[in-house]
Amino acid sequence: MDKVVKTLKEAIQLAGVKDGSRISFHHHLRNGDYVLNMVMDEIAGMGYKDISVNASSLFDCHLPLVDHIKNGVVTELITDYMSGGIGAQISEGILEKPVQFRTHGGRPADIIKGVTPIDVAFIAAPTADTMGNMTGKIGKSACGSMGYAYADAMCAKKVVVITDNLVPYPLPYPSIDETYADYVVSVDAIGNPAGIVSGTTKITRDPVGLVMAQTAAKVIQASGLLKDGFSFQTGAGGATLAAAQFLKEIMLKEGIKGSFGCGGITGYMVDMLNEGCFESLIDVQCFDLKAVESIRTNPKHTEVSAMRYASPDAKSAAVDSLDVVLLGATEIDTDFNVNVHTNSSGKIMGGSGGHSDTAAGAKLAMIIAPLSRARLPIVTDHVFCKSTPGSTIDVLVTQKGVAVNPARPELAAKLKDGGIHVVDIFELKEAAEKLCGQPKPLVKGDKVVADIIYRDGTLLDKIYNVR
Amino acid sequence: MDKVVKTLKEAIQLAGVKDGSRISFHHHLRNGDYVLNMVMDEIAGMGYKDISVNASSLFDCHLPLVDHIKNGVVTELITDYMSGGIGAQISEGILEKPVQFRTHGGRPADIIKGVTPIDVAFIAAPTADTMGNMTGKIGKSACGSMGYAYADAMCAKKVVVITDNLVPYPLPYPSIDETYADYVVSVDAIGNPAGIVSGTTKITRDPVGLVMAQTAAKVIQASGLLKDGFSFQTGAGGATLAAAQFLKEIMLKEGIKGSFGCGGITGYMVDMLNEGCFESLIDVQCFDLKAVESIRTNPKHTEVSAMRYASPDAKSAAVDSLDVVLLGATEIDTDFNVNVHTNSSGKIMGGSGGHSDTAAGAKLAMIIAPLSRARLPIVTDHVFCKSTPGSTIDVLVTQKGVAVNPARPELAAKLKDGGIHVVDIFELKEAAEKLCGQPKPLVKGDKVVADIIYRDGTLLDKIYNVR
Repeated sequence: MDKVVKTLKEAIQLAGVKDGSRISFHHHLRNGDYVLNMVMDEIAGMGYKDISVNASSLFDCHLPLVDHIKNGVVTELITDYMSGGIGAQISEGILEKPVQFRTHGGRPADIIKGVTPIDVAFIAAPTADTMGNMTGKIGKSACGSMGYAYADAMCAKKVVVITDNLVPYPLPYPSIDETYADYVVSVDAIGNPAGIVSGTTKITRDPVGLVMAQTAAKVIQASGLLKDGFSFQTGAGGATLAAAQFLKEIMLKEGIKGSFGCGGITGYMVDMLNEGCFESLIDVQCFDLKAVESIRTNPKHTEVSAMRYASPDAKSAAVDSLDVVLLGATEIDTDFNVNVHTNSSGKIMGGSGGHSDTAAGAKLAMIIAPLSRARLPIVTDHVFCKSTPGSTIDVLVTQKGVAVNPARPELAAKLKDGGIHVVDIFELKEAAEKLCGQPKPLVKGDKVVADIIYRDGTLLDKIYNVR
Repeated sequence: MDKVVKTLKEAIQLAGVKDGSRISFHHHLRNGDYVLNMVMDEIAGMGYKDISVNASSLFDCHLPLVDHIKNGVVTELITDYMSGGIGAQISEGILEKPVQFRTHGGRPADIIKGVTPIDVAFIAAPTADTMGNMTGKIGKSACGSMGYAYADAMCAKKVVVITDNLVPYPLPYPSIDETYADYVVSVDAIGNPAGIVSGTTKITRDPVGLVMAQTAAKVIQASGLLKDGFSFQTGAGGATLAAAQFLKEIMLKEGIKGSFGCGGITGYMVDMLNEGCFESLIDVQCFDLKAVESIRTNPKHTEVSAMRYASPDAKSAAVDSLDVVLLGATEIDTDFNVNVHTNSSGKIMGGSGGHSDTAAGAKLAMIIAPLSRARLPIVTDHVFCKSTPGSTIDVLVTQKGVAVNPARPELAAKLKDGGIHVVDIFELKEAAEKLCGQPKPLVKGDKVVADIIYRDGTLLDKIYNVR
């Protein structure tokens, strides 16, 4: 009378995995996830081939996937982000079909529309009951929000819940409920807590980073958006976190009552909530233990699905109400196109995640990046890979000045009025090249290793192998 | 940049209502609802005709609907329950097409499957923000759970949120979120709080009712189901509430720790939660203010969608995990088929609601009914209208003995062992007829006024007009 099956193997069989199946995973356990490897090893052991894996993100803990690719067990990858270890292998061309990169908003939209139908979703659940009601808020492997798993649960033909904290029915207030669950498997551990919420992201102490962060805060102030009702998203990078810190100081000093903080949530955002800078947090993913603790206990800290976070097909998403987003870049070109997929060697080491979703939605989309990294200029004529279209980027903040997208002259005027050192993006490119010299252009190979699919489903760019 | 439109009329226009549209409503505001009439009056005033109305239930506060039917504005009704004032008119044949009666679980299943697609859902929201995130837990018209509105929100082409408590974005932890909302309309009042949660349901003091209630509690005890992990649903009728009260006393005395209480939730169920009889409540609808206060403040009191409550198409629903449900009947026949749609005159005055869903799901589905009402026997050869199939009913409790469905001999044996006075259902029929005489059979008219559609989509019965 319940949905608990004894072994993962039995669940895989019951769910009907077969050659050519598409299976899916969420990435809330981040670099501590055990579930993807556990499932893939089992599937490989059962002799299945030609599996398509749709994982909301892939981390280096998933490196065993490389062997499954080489053995023909996995022949298709769909993801929003891929860390450098796996990315380097993909860039060498180990997979015949190009990886399909989507955004955190585009992924659920395409699952719901049926563009990327899922046969079996394997959902790592920090707590689940015997009928498959699940939550990420409690359990030894608590990850907080389970936002990226909603679309998988709602749309997959079969849903297998894998938990290391099986509780009696009914689990109160599940994140995802039993109406979507087919089977429940209890395992010893779904992840390594140290990797799930690494808690290592710290505000930068690098002087260049601090200059950029302070400038970013001033740009937001000068934009006129920093007033009561202000809403804000920032990533977990050191410089963007520092910018959030400066912003918080301004908000507290000036008594500005913001509306919401959004996105992947860090303890810094939780502090801003608790200190009154925001009325609430909209959380699709927790980055650290403080965020997990907050979403568990604070009713103003709302768990949301990836659809509500960022889907372009939702009737509205949180990103559509966002005032300001602070984003990073590995490259930005003079048309403000941004690369967050590849590193300076052209190898895959990232992905859009929510980058292009928030850039499209926010009133002010700001890139924070130093003029150069490892003696390579950040501003280029053409990005090696277009992750986010320049039309959605409003401003680039560097340590040597702020470039405003020429499509936003009214913003440039406001920033100048606010005393910001506004420069032409070509000047920043020249300044960088003066420092570093003009870099040798990367030589693209002849094999497409990844397609960059924009949030609206169009093909934005292709990534080629590296020679 | 938000979804607020100035008037209901504008929202109706923007949502594209036209001749022949199907629109929907939920019934959480019960007999205090203003929204259905408000919308229908506006639509009538705009000159639209041939509207299909899918309302999860209809109460006598919706009597103005009768005029809209007579004027040809409304030509189709789909509902799960209809109170006597409207029911009497329908029974006279004012509507050309038969009313489609579904169950609380079948309704969302058919909406989601596309059997009854909705053009525009009008959702009364006790609190909503400017992007259409909504909750029933707060606001002057708070109704608690909004469980019946989920399918409408998720599947309607357009969703209009109507609220009398518009709050800034983002409302934390909405019941239904912005991804589904198209337009938001602010009005003075969505309902009359006195009618929303009447709070008038009291435990019966009628001696016959108390005898039946005590017997019902003993039957549950004798069935062997009353042990740790016990789960339970009861309606809001006086005798079933009294049975719950006796059950609570047994549970407290014997230290039995139940699992969950389910269904439309009353203050009596809240007391059972608070006194430790249950670990949690699963709430698709709040019947009184105590339930509303509890769902707002107690994290063990979980709001659920109608799908999670009772959908036969969900991978599981709460009713599937239910041990015992106590239900009423206007008639029950010797095959245990139950009528809850028509009164002794054959006129419509009710509907299945969750009756057949819980009967199908629960391990023990019990009807509590007196042998006769107003000098008419309750047990008959054939019910005038089959609302719930006898195959799903396990036992009938009357003041003169307990009849067990012959398909459940092991249950009959247990009850006898437990000292319960078990009788044949034909004996109960005879006893009733001895008291009241054999009633004159109702004469059916020749016009079908309603179809009873079972939770699996099959046609269970038809209701004819009354001559």
